[in-house]
Amino acid sequence: MRRKEFDQSHDQAELEAFLQEMSFGFLASVRPDGTPGITPLNFVYRNGSLYFHGSRAGEKIKSLKANEQVSFCVAREYALIPSYFEDPELACPATAYFKSVLLRGTASLVENLEEKADALQAMMAKLQPEGGHEPIRADDARYRGNLKGVAVIRLNVEHISAKFKFGQNLTEPKREAVAGQLERRGCPFDHETAALMRRYAPDGDGQPQPAE
Amino acid sequence: MRRKEFDQSHDQAELEAFLQEMSFGFLASVRPDGTPGITPLNFVYRNGSLYFHGSRAGEKIKSLKANEQVSFCVAREYALIPSYFEDPELACPATAYFKSVLLRGTASLVENLEEKADALQAMMAKLQPEGGHEPIRADDARYRGNLKGVAVIRLNVEHISAKFKFGQNLTEPKREAVAGQLERRGCPFDHETAALMRRYAPDGDGQPQPAE
Repeated sequence: MRRKEFDQSHDQAELEAFLQEMSFGFLASVRPDGTPGITPLNFVYRNGSLYFHGSRAGEKIKSLKANEQVSFCVAREYALIPSYFEDPELACPATAYFKSVLLRGTASLVENLEEKADALQAMMAKLQPEGGHEPIRADDARYRGNLKGVAVIRLNVEHISAKFKFGQNLTEPKREAVAGQLERRGCPFDHETAALMRRYAPDGDGQPQPAE
Repeated sequence: MRRKEFDQSHDQAELEAFLQEMSFGFLASVRPDGTPGITPLNFVYRNGSLYFHGSRAGEKIKSLKANEQVSFCVAREYALIPSYFEDPELACPATAYFKSVLLRGTASLVENLEEKADALQAMMAKLQPEGGHEPIRADDARYRGNLKGVAVIRLNVEHISAKFKFGQNLTEPKREAVAGQLERRGCPFDHETAALMRRYAPDGDGQPQPAE
């Protein structure tokens, strides 16, 4: 049951920023024997498509050739919320706050060398933004052999949705109580999580908070 | 193509320690329409089974009732290895070092209240080890209603495998060069990653390094 208050699917800019920030996600496919496969992969989202790469001879490619329907999920957990933030007695309110983006569509093997080079160069720019290598270009003889040898897969995105869970279901006083306790706990990302609780609150403006 | 040098499937103690350390993973299933579904979930691995919970009315449960075959993947990326650690010119050596554990099997809805309570209590002990709540017990009237209402799913694990990628395919001098550059870079987890490179090296002893 997808609860409406956590749905962030409408906010394309937020989704794309999250996909740019995250280095890897999980590809789900249906394997030739009908069972589900799942693989963690580095990826880049570019021009409305998601790209990843692998070995031409791998099980992943065999699986995608047999069934091109795939899902890809990228998620980050920001904070575990202990039950005692809300209830001194029962464990029930324990939860996790997270961002999760789900992409569904079909997978195609990219054969065009220019598109392969562009996708791999975009992945380098994302994961190694400091540079330190010759740009990957289809017309660069030093890359040509490797470009032909590697498998680049394009996920043709048909549907994209996002669930951002940051206490949007809480009343405003409860939200402030949890946010305040996160700030006092001060684990890594707790301050960021408290800011996101306020940002995504039903009466929030959806805008980033000014830095403290 | 699963490269043998990264396979850590034989080391049950390592796998279980990793599953205990990681708070969430990704469940892949085949949906009633035949397409792959994928969901991030908090979980606990206990007595050779993996447990997670959700809403009785959710899409996840409907999907599992239609097809009980599932896969569950837990992965952590330790470091992005820039190409220039190995090659001053070409992007090709860029990679990521990570641990990934894959579990395959069937999913069953847990109906027995004792097993439900035990699984949820184990999840609390894992994710909220500091306590701060009454233990979840089937015979505690305060928990009984919620225990009946929540769906707890057991993944009956039929196959478990692990891929730990930490440069095991490098020659020893190249491995030391990469490890040394990680230590000099000093991003969060870079020192830990360098230690894991030495630990999992083909000629390493597979034992934890002494603390520095």
